[in-house]
Amino acid sequence: MHDKPRILRTTTVARTRLFQVETVDLRFGNGAEVRYERLRNTTPGAVLIVPVRDDGQVLLIREYAVGTERYELGLPKGRIEPDEDPLTTAGRELMEEVGCGARSLEPLATLTVAPGYFGHLTHLVLARDLYPARRPGDEPEPIEVVPWPLARLDALLQRDDFTEARSIAALFLARERLHPPHFEEETPHP
Amino acid sequence: MHDKPRILRTTTVARTRLFQVETVDLRFGNGAEVRYERLRNTTPGAVLIVPVRDDGQVLLIREYAVGTERYELGLPKGRIEPDEDPLTTAGRELMEEVGCGARSLEPLATLTVAPGYFGHLTHLVLARDLYPARRPGDEPEPIEVVPWPLARLDALLQRDDFTEARSIAALFLARERLHPPHFEEETPHP
Repeated sequence: MHDKPRILRTTTVARTRLFQVETVDLRFGNGAEVRYERLRNTTPGAVLIVPVRDDGQVLLIREYAVGTERYELGLPKGRIEPDEDPLTTAGRELMEEVGCGARSLEPLATLTVAPGYFGHLTHLVLARDLYPARRPGDEPEPIEVVPWPLARLDALLQRDDFTEARSIAALFLARERLHPPHFEEETPHP
Repeated sequence: MHDKPRILRTTTVARTRLFQVETVDLRFGNGAEVRYERLRNTTPGAVLIVPVRDDGQVLLIREYAVGTERYELGLPKGRIEPDEDPLTTAGRELMEEVGCGARSLEPLATLTVAPGYFGHLTHLVLARDLYPARRPGDEPEPIEVVPWPLARLDALLQRDDFTEARSIAALFLARERLHPPHFEEETPHP
């Protein structure tokens, strides 16, 4: 293990409505000095929800993504408000984006998206025991809900509109939690 | 399916060494007009490599990440140079970061990290049939290589320094490619 680098100075170099860029001057344990750029965290992070119906269908959403300029399939998500618990955010966003509530909300994992450039955390939440419930959201057009059988994750991964690393990781993690796989080399069958 | 929104105008609002932020004015199919902010792509994307040894160990790296201000375990990765093929980038970065070459390099998937804010693509590459080979990199301190058995992915996911969505998705996808799992509900055994 290396000694942790020491931060010598941080300087904000750009600030827009959503983004804040700063430079960070660092000294590594071996004396090397480096200047990095990173996006500064200005929010408490986000939740990404895996809503699974009793019949094993995951409720995906299809939404326009301006970063890639196309409609993307993915999981419902939302920003955590200041002082809000991630499970509360998950329950709220599920009602706004999918039109259902969940009697069971359980944390699955906490992910980073690009830790070299961004400290942003995404809390994955497994939502089960769903019931119809809608809260108004702030989307410019209605979000399309697309049920997809979790058992057919392989076919979903073949689609070129299902590409977001967090959604892919979340579905694998949910599948592990709900149906731990059996590998041939680990559990040989007669 | 909705009609695709029409981009009315894009305006660069900040530019730093690494980041470029732009506003995008959009008109949705229903007439709603919205202004979004996104990070502009200034590079051809990145590769993330899953190097698997013949004994089933994945070669992870431990590296300081200034976004989260801690050492993170993850997969070797790097930026694609202009006009470079992703498999070429993968071979080069593997030598620089891990100290080995790969006789087999195969595409696994192409991921996005946050399509609502960023069009950046990451090409996942499975690297096998490894051999010792080192190229000098530009890291401020030597990168620590951490072999980890792919069969113990569950234990890796418990660690709080292995959190990057792309690395998690990549290891699940590599495991599916190398050892397709058998689920009890799909393939009942006597």
